[in-house]
Amino acid sequence: MSHMTIDPESSLPLYAQVEAVLAASIADGTYPPGSRLPNEESLLERFGVSRTTLQKTVQNLIKRGLIEIRRGKGTFVTQPKITQELTELSGFVEDMRALGRHPSARLVDRQVVPANDRVARQLGLAAGTLVMRIQRVRLADGMPLSFDETWLPKDIGEKIIGNDLDTEPIFSLLEQKYDMPLVEAEYRLEATCADETVAQALGIAPGSPIFLIERTSYCAGHQPVDYEKLYYRGDQIQFVTRLARRTKRG
Amino acid sequence: MSHMTIDPESSLPLYAQVEAVLAASIADGTYPPGSRLPNEESLLERFGVSRTTLQKTVQNLIKRGLIEIRRGKGTFVTQPKITQELTELSGFVEDMRALGRHPSARLVDRQVVPANDRVARQLGLAAGTLVMRIQRVRLADGMPLSFDETWLPKDIGEKIIGNDLDTEPIFSLLEQKYDMPLVEAEYRLEATCADETVAQALGIAPGSPIFLIERTSYCAGHQPVDYEKLYYRGDQIQFVTRLARRTKRG
Repeated sequence: MSHMTIDPESSLPLYAQVEAVLAASIADGTYPPGSRLPNEESLLERFGVSRTTLQKTVQNLIKRGLIEIRRGKGTFVTQPKITQELTELSGFVEDMRALGRHPSARLVDRQVVPANDRVARQLGLAAGTLVMRIQRVRLADGMPLSFDETWLPKDIGEKIIGNDLDTEPIFSLLEQKYDMPLVEAEYRLEATCADETVAQALGIAPGSPIFLIERTSYCAGHQPVDYEKLYYRGDQIQFVTRLARRTKRG
Repeated sequence: MSHMTIDPESSLPLYAQVEAVLAASIADGTYPPGSRLPNEESLLERFGVSRTTLQKTVQNLIKRGLIEIRRGKGTFVTQPKITQELTELSGFVEDMRALGRHPSARLVDRQVVPANDRVARQLGLAAGTLVMRIQRVRLADGMPLSFDETWLPKDIGEKIIGNDLDTEPIFSLLEQKYDMPLVEAEYRLEATCADETVAQALGIAPGSPIFLIERTSYCAGHQPVDYEKLYYRGDQIQFVTRLARRTKRG
């Protein structure tokens, strides 16, 4: 607990003093990320300030991004989102290891299905061609982070599902076991809402924000081998990149 | 209207025949993007199929991404989203012109405010330093597409607001009028939900999906000059990029 105290003689207004104490308690780990703050009544008692003053403090801490109100649940210290680089083609396991997080997977379904228009176009096949669809939940430190749908050409897919997809990443299987090194991928990024399937897979409410990545990965000769829809929990992840200005502009 | 008709003697099942007729009518512009399909009763009458058959047709067209149900409003031909490249640092006006769309802007507010922790850090200032905050709605062909909040160092900001921000892009002013060519930017991409302010600015319901871009743009010498939060309508835009596989992996 921070040793700073409230001084009614201070030139700093009371709400700012309480704010400083709470911010320090968050910074020093007294209230760690994701923890619940004491309720309003106990904070009022502890600091001996008015409800209006405390509410101003809370509003400021929310504006600073240090705390958030979860409706019906209380006030929580903000969890920093997972910050993932979006600068090269990489798979979930590689991404999580780079962030020092433990990746795992749960196979939901794998079956041969006819390719719809979009899947067919992305894999360079005729619509209706049979393809392998694999659905998995991907977890970071045990938390469901992404629901992944993967479509593969049927012959490759049938080889892939002979492996333990809870432990073996598809990218590693393609590259190391089946000698299909990936060269590049096309990404399509969207903000959308979780439908029932996605919500259930991720354990979130339908309508929750989803960062959707559609990705088509290519082998040498621009041969498409893997089309994915990756539904990431919007409240848990952010992607970062750097872009350069074109030096001469039209 | 398509001249294809339903043939009960055909080897193709009825639902697939109706599907082909409707898909052709969408493709040939009989039902253009954004238009409402005739209601179920008129389609049943026109094709002379059972309700179950028609429902299978509709489910398939939804799966193909050709139509969508808007609750309480009917069934509509899908509007393709604006597809914007995310490969170099560019401003809204440049992006829209590259897509053949007419950009415009509506200034919502401009005022000097103390920088909060995040704004201060991004602009390389001490928290509480006065900065200029500019809020604008950006429109594509007259439709509000993005709510933009821009923070500039106070001295630059005071020059910028002397211009007509409904017509002059800030990037152009910085580069051409004030001789501050931009070099690169850091992007942070998130999926979130519209709060009241964003929803009102964009004319959408609170809670609607938002593709949020936080962007800090730098001049020569890695000098930050412009920090922005760009709240794009998630239902109207998608971003595309291509990423290469690293050739040797750990």
